[in-house]
Amino acid sequence: MKSDQGGHPARPGGLVTDGTYVLQPIGWVDSPLVGKNAAPKQGSRGITRRPARLRRIDGRLRDLEVGSEILVLTWLDRARRDVLVVHPRDDLTNPQRGVFSTRSADRPNPIGLHRVTISAITGSAVEVQDLEALDGTPVVDIKPVLHPLDR
Amino acid sequence: MKSDQGGHPARPGGLVTDGTYVLQPIGWVDSPLVGKNAAPKQGSRGITRRPARLRRIDGRLRDLEVGSEILVLTWLDRARRDVLVVHPRDDLTNPQRGVFSTRSADRPNPIGLHRVTISAITGSAVEVQDLEALDGTPVVDIKPVLHPLDR
Repeated sequence: MKSDQGGHPARPGGLVTDGTYVLQPIGWVDSPLVGKNAAPKQGSRGITRRPARLRRIDGRLRDLEVGSEILVLTWLDRARRDVLVVHPRDDLTNPQRGVFSTRSADRPNPIGLHRVTISAITGSAVEVQDLEALDGTPVVDIKPVLHPLDR
Repeated sequence: MKSDQGGHPARPGGLVTDGTYVLQPIGWVDSPLVGKNAAPKQGSRGITRRPARLRRIDGRLRDLEVGSEILVLTWLDRARRDVLVVHPRDDLTNPQRGVFSTRSADRPNPIGLHRVTISAITGSAVEVQDLEALDGTPVVDIKPVLHPLDR
């Protein structure tokens, strides 16, 4: 992030005066999943392999490797932030649970965490397999998977 | 998050007009790690077990279980957001790498990802083992570890 982007000062931590922080997209998801109900629930069985693309990534990509696994952090911008309990998998027959014990997209800070495999890197785009995120979702971070502890 | 907190409208996604998003802490870390150089590098060998506490967590905790593993997402508020390449582990003899291929705290959106085990839950606090985060670090999300894929 450059200090002249977004109108926010580039001071450490990005603290805004009211105790909140500012998250700035580093790129966006191109995905065949369009519309809020298109995304499969995380951990679903029988997910078919689909390519998706992280585009306009602002950062050095040449150290990423095709074939390696990464963690993609997204901002699930179509989620609801005002719910603290949900019926898991949107199934009303499931008892309500606190969102922090589920992977629901609806949560106070709707950060998506996706473990995916890189299938190609071209310019500022990274093609990945099995990213369960809606088209246009902001990407906020990319991290390597750490072995063996996978922290 | 309630709509009267923080002065931000609780609309879906929390989009601010300039394309950024607002992250609101859901709690804070109490940790014996104080000062920027106190935190061990992620993936370090020989880490000793230390308890830390997630305090003032705003959300339903009774569905979390002592002994289970969770992913704690933090906002590493003392990190630098204006660097895109680093020497891994702050060792100048390591060749520079793009931050997205490292677990450096310094990155455009300094979100920390910590896989930890719950050792106790009391009121709005969760005691965990081996959380490598500085005292006072904001907590922004808690997610269950999904088995076996650990997405």
